[in-house]
Amino acid sequence: MDKVELEVRVRYVETDQMGVAHHASYFTWMEAARTELLRLKGLPYKELEARGYFLPVREAFCRYRRSLQYDNIAVVEVELLELKGASLKLGYRIYKKNDRKIAAEGYTMHPFVDKNGKIVKVPDFFKKLFGE
Amino acid sequence: MDKVELEVRVRYVETDQMGVAHHASYFTWMEAARTELLRLKGLPYKELEARGYFLPVREAFCRYRRSLQYDNIAVVEVELLELKGASLKLGYRIYKKNDRKIAAEGYTMHPFVDKNGKIVKVPDFFKKLFGE
Amino acid sequence: MDKVELEVRVRYVETDQMGVAHHASYFTWMEAARTELLRLKGLPYKELEARGYFLPVREAFCRYRRSLQYDNIAVVEVELLELKGASLKLGYRIYKKNDRKIAAEGYTMHPFVDKNGKIVKVPDFFKKLFGE
Amino acid sequence: MDKVELEVRVRYVETDQMGVAHHASYFTWMEAARTELLRLKGLPYKELEARGYFLPVREAFCRYRRSLQYDNIAVVEVELLELKGASLKLGYRIYKKNDRKIAAEGYTMHPFVDKNGKIVKVPDFFKKLFGE
Repeated sequence: MDKVELEVRVRYVETDQMGVAHHASYFTWMEAARTELLRLKGLPYKELEARGYFLPVREAFCRYRRSLQYDNIAVVEVELLELKGASLKLGYRIYKKNDRKIAAEGYTMHPFVDKNGKIVKVPDFFKKLFGE
Repeated sequence: MDKVELEVRVRYVETDQMGVAHHASYFTWMEAARTELLRLKGLPYKELEARGYFLPVREAFCRYRRSLQYDNIAVVEVELLELKGASLKLGYRIYKKNDRKIAAEGYTMHPFVDKNGKIVKVPDFFKKLFGE
Repeated sequence: MDKVELEVRVRYVETDQMGVAHHASYFTWMEAARTELLRLKGLPYKELEARGYFLPVREAFCRYRRSLQYDNIAVVEVELLELKGASLKLGYRIYKKNDRKIAAEGYTMHPFVDKNGKIVKVPDFFKKLFGE
Repeated sequence: MDKVELEVRVRYVETDQMGVAHHASYFTWMEAARTELLRLKGLPYKELEARGYFLPVREAFCRYRRSLQYDNIAVVEVELLELKGASLKLGYRIYKKNDRKIAAEGYTMHPFVDKNGKIVKVPDFFKKLFGE
């Protein structure tokens, strides 16, 4: 259960004049998927923020393999890649639902920061969510 | 000087598969234009927020007349329509720069609210900016 | 069945520094809801485009009543308001799912246009979808 | 002149509830910057599309160093990193204009594709733009 899937339907606004989903949209889908991962782990991200911890993005990467069209359902799979020191690394795979062919894959890396933007160690309650 | 113009170049991400600028983008350009209006009036919006006042959107309207394409330069004209009680109403006209033909027109209405989201009267220093 | 509901979870990217969903996002949710309306009527919008008809936005209006926060589930209700001549008018109501309190309401108006951008009458097959 | 700078003012809509520019916006600024690079090279991207060539994104990467706030002016510097076979690689550096401190850096990689989405060699007229 360190892997979670979220379905996202490609919105018209997310297409561009090439007739496919714009590449920047994929990063917002990854973000929505990690929101689900934390929710299913029992700690919705807004609760994490309420506790004074934030997960800004330090690095974001995506490799695009096959385009997605308007109204396609994309399946965004997210999993924990690494959790140590002060940072969290998540990996993503995005499929087209109907044929399960891969559309893109990528990762994001996040430091843990407090309300003042200072980098802090991964809190213990967070490690426990992932059995670490 | 109660009217200000802002030039905006249509970004690729702002197009959709119809090959034109997506209608929701126009509202973000209007927003950028009112940012310029306040700056030129001497009160950047971020300073207004720093003073504890916010201008959320209560109403937003746009009528689209001619489409805009990727890389077109749009001129967004904004002017004060009304300032009374607790609210501000602004009007917008969006032109295509090269032929000055109108692309869209609209308005937004904004209540003044404080940090707690409570509606408050238009502050005097704000009225003075517009000679009212 | 001339009314359809779509649930949308507010994404982090859709918030702004006021801590609420940005007003332009509502127009993209309305768009997603009319996509569902057409699908449930039996004519997905992409099929309409495949038949050579497009529904650009002529007018868009939204009145915002209560803000929506990150991770809230918004219910977007869409219904046919008018279908005549060459145009379609749809009405929307957006609720916060957990308390069913209204967050916003609005409408969009769309001309029917062909591949060349020429305005055309509402096609008969479209009228039939709505029993008109 | 294989390096070009574009100034972008951070829009309100581009902020999120963390109070800074959202990470996905950086990719749209990079896109706007490469539009300028091609324009200054004498071949606006829309002309490239008119000639039947497209530059979808194959890879996109960004490392975020310091956050950008609403109304900050960001300077997006773009330069050619590689042009060979069927692909173009561009590098980016994003500065905060007022202190010239780096905010982010990244790259994008693009295959050349034709109207049918088939990958094709970098056309000669494109190589010449960059003196290759």
